[in-house]
Amino acid sequence: MTEIENIILPEPTLRRLPWYLAYIEILKGTGVSTVSTTRISRALNVDSSQIAKDLSFLNIKGKPRIGYNISDLSQALSTFLGFSHEHRAIVVGVGSLGAALLQDKGLARYGLGIVAGFDVDPGLIGSRIGDVPVYAISEIERVRRETGASIGILTVPARKAQEMTDIMVSTGIKAIWNFTPYRVRVADGIVMANTSIYAHLALIYNRLGAATASMG
Amino acid sequence: MTEIENIILPEPTLRRLPWYLAYIEILKGTGVSTVSTTRISRALNVDSSQIAKDLSFLNIKGKPRIGYNISDLSQALSTFLGFSHEHRAIVVGVGSLGAALLQDKGLARYGLGIVAGFDVDPGLIGSRIGDVPVYAISEIERVRRETGASIGILTVPARKAQEMTDIMVSTGIKAIWNFTPYRVRVADGIVMANTSIYAHLALIYNRLGAATASMG
Repeated sequence: MTEIENIILPEPTLRRLPWYLAYIEILKGTGVSTVSTTRISRALNVDSSQIAKDLSFLNIKGKPRIGYNISDLSQALSTFLGFSHEHRAIVVGVGSLGAALLQDKGLARYGLGIVAGFDVDPGLIGSRIGDVPVYAISEIERVRRETGASIGILTVPARKAQEMTDIMVSTGIKAIWNFTPYRVRVADGIVMANTSIYAHLALIYNRLGAATASMG
Repeated sequence: MTEIENIILPEPTLRRLPWYLAYIEILKGTGVSTVSTTRISRALNVDSSQIAKDLSFLNIKGKPRIGYNISDLSQALSTFLGFSHEHRAIVVGVGSLGAALLQDKGLARYGLGIVAGFDVDPGLIGSRIGDVPVYAISEIERVRRETGASIGILTVPARKAQEMTDIMVSTGIKAIWNFTPYRVRVADGIVMANTSIYAHLALIYNRLGAATASMG
């Protein structure tokens, strides 16, 4: 059993494992069949003992002086990270970002199956975006139950973020993926992940300004 | 001068300040005119002394027992975070995420002015998406120079990430905002921000699985 889903992995490990996967999938595409931690280390600028430690969570062994079989490692990483089986999700807020997620076929390759969108806009309700049906908010409870979705993706305006989160959790959603700038609160036991686009912008502006100032 | 761009702020502060801004803009919309750190603290579940410390980077003072004037604080935060003036950016890779960013009018309210998109698809080159022109990669150097863009948004497939980053940097781009799962390397002095959608998915799957296992 190489499933990730039994142990709580440290966040830094969860951030690095997808880097390794992306890198070895590129290598696989070039026809290479084995890879060493040294090679991954050089490509990604991550310490090779750190890579070995991260990979030790997986049930896979490399060979001395040869390294890992790339197909095996790719499959083990993908399974371990939960990318190789479907996790169902709903998207609440079908604006430009929400609609992009509905249309993004690439997310399925990472195990995310978006089964429904929800919005307040009568022009969107009843339509399909990227083959995903869009419903009124009032239908969340039924659609959530019928699809068995466990993940709720939050792409509404900030002022609606807490209210829509509470509605999702009340219908049985177990994880909230928050793309809004608002810090949403959830009860213990509900998984919360924030993708802070606005914090990243603030970081870029700050570092750019500091770099410019130090050059000036 | 309340510009953020002269000092390097700690990343956790840069993550929290946009939360405060989002919250007080919601409050402003309800007609409230002042806000205390205690009130922000209760709403966002952040320690109130931490909020006071974060806000001390700004050139703004609250009044004892009253707190901050909301309009003043909102404006100060927005200016300080760099959201109130335009930072020009180009988007390399106009797939579903790249195209969504071109169409997202909301980013302009956070100071991001996307002036051009680039792609290899002949069907996209020469078109406009959300009023932003899409060019061939071969035109990056000229368009970068003519627009004065300093930020490069990377939304290409992982196998193209490093090559496109190198091209952007060679044309004068000073900051890379990486949305790919690949860990891109840049020279010292180039600002790098990673928005790790795939790492967040791995985190959600892991925590969901662990929660389910502990209940079972």
